[in-house]
Amino acid sequence: MILKQQAKFVKSLKLKKYRNKASCFLVEGAKNVIELIGSDYDIQELYLTEKFIEEHPEIEIRRFNYTICKERELISMGTFQSNAYALAVAKMKRHPLNLAGRSAIALDEVSDPGNLGTIIRIADWYGIRHVIAGIGTADFYNPKVINASMGSFSRVQIHHFDLAGFFEDNTSHKVYGAVLNGANIHHLEFEKPLIILMGNESNGINAALLKYVDFPITIPGIGAAESLNVAVSTAVICDNIFRN
Amino acid sequence: MILKQQAKFVKSLKLKKYRNKASCFLVEGAKNVIELIGSDYDIQELYLTEKFIEEHPEIEIRRFNYTICKERELISMGTFQSNAYALAVAKMKRHPLNLAGRSAIALDEVSDPGNLGTIIRIADWYGIRHVIAGIGTADFYNPKVINASMGSFSRVQIHHFDLAGFFEDNTSHKVYGAVLNGANIHHLEFEKPLIILMGNESNGINAALLKYVDFPITIPGIGAAESLNVAVSTAVICDNIFRN
Repeated sequence: MILKQQAKFVKSLKLKKYRNKASCFLVEGAKNVIELIGSDYDIQELYLTEKFIEEHPEIEIRRFNYTICKERELISMGTFQSNAYALAVAKMKRHPLNLAGRSAIALDEVSDPGNLGTIIRIADWYGIRHVIAGIGTADFYNPKVINASMGSFSRVQIHHFDLAGFFEDNTSHKVYGAVLNGANIHHLEFEKPLIILMGNESNGINAALLKYVDFPITIPGIGAAESLNVAVSTAVICDNIFRN
Repeated sequence: MILKQQAKFVKSLKLKKYRNKASCFLVEGAKNVIELIGSDYDIQELYLTEKFIEEHPEIEIRRFNYTICKERELISMGTFQSNAYALAVAKMKRHPLNLAGRSAIALDEVSDPGNLGTIIRIADWYGIRHVIAGIGTADFYNPKVINASMGSFSRVQIHHFDLAGFFEDNTSHKVYGAVLNGANIHHLEFEKPLIILMGNESNGINAALLKYVDFPITIPGIGAAESLNVAVSTAVICDNIFRN
């Protein structure tokens, strides 16, 4: 049984203002909640259906502050159109940024939450632990970001920074920026560790940031499309960098 | 001035049933409509704002059956949250399938319209002209597909087929199917022309179709994510096949 007050709090976390006030965020669906439980995030509340508990005897739910509830309650509190399993409220975390020896992805105004979530999933696939999100990039804790990351939010650290300041301080990593007329990524030797810089969905990398790009790079196209989606481009670039 | 009856017809095209009945589909936004005008699709109706006409003097609008309208009318008839420019109604086309010497992408139950549209954009980027959509794949003429394709719908031909029958008849092309434990795409020599087979978002390629796969292939991951999004995977595979 969920109290009205609890439901109201969970619902409020759909909005950034209330997430920041409470320093909490929403995680929905079986896969995402299981990944959350396996991570070092601090879980404040778990809302689980009987079905979830039956299907996951390996999870010691007594370790958590949990409430058993109905599918319709999960749907009413969350953002999913269907959710027969689980919803969690977790505490936000701030990670110190330590890029020593590690590559990272920097995002300049990647504003669509679905794109950010997909990029986090891609980073996780290619073993990249750090995503640096410039001003204007979607909020990492937006439920759409968490959902699109398919659990990878629990393994990839995001750092919201002003990118110009970040690049001013960066002396250790070469910056590879995705542009329309750069070097062909199929023919490059990449100097790792590195930073991949991806720009806004419509406008690419802001002019003010281009001076920090050591190597402008491009995915060669054979056909007639003008561009690729930013998440798709990130994946193709990562695949060219991290191949053996 | 748009008549009620016109608006009703345009709105009806959001649903597959009415699209098929009228053999017509919706195209929205300046970029998509401009690409449509440049294609060989038969345009039934154009709804344009004064702004669109002013900004595109190169388009001979008198060649078309057009109506000047307000932004709010475009929004009310279409699916966009904002559209200050254009909306078109075009006639569907059936293309004969001729794969002689050409590679193609086959999709087994790729059900999300955004994924299908993104895959069409990727196909266009890599010069692939044919997408073969199996049963259960999203409808090509769904407005979300057209929109996500970013104009590429006008250059890529889609063929809705039963894939088993299609593969039975195929003797000319090797089939490369994306699976979880296939050969590393970074180390393969691809025999072109070929067919890339991508499976459903959650379940991959149907078991019944696996016998048609000549080469099971996989994108090697270094990190911990279980999988990549199907459109993202399609792009990475295309980039490995069509590199020079």
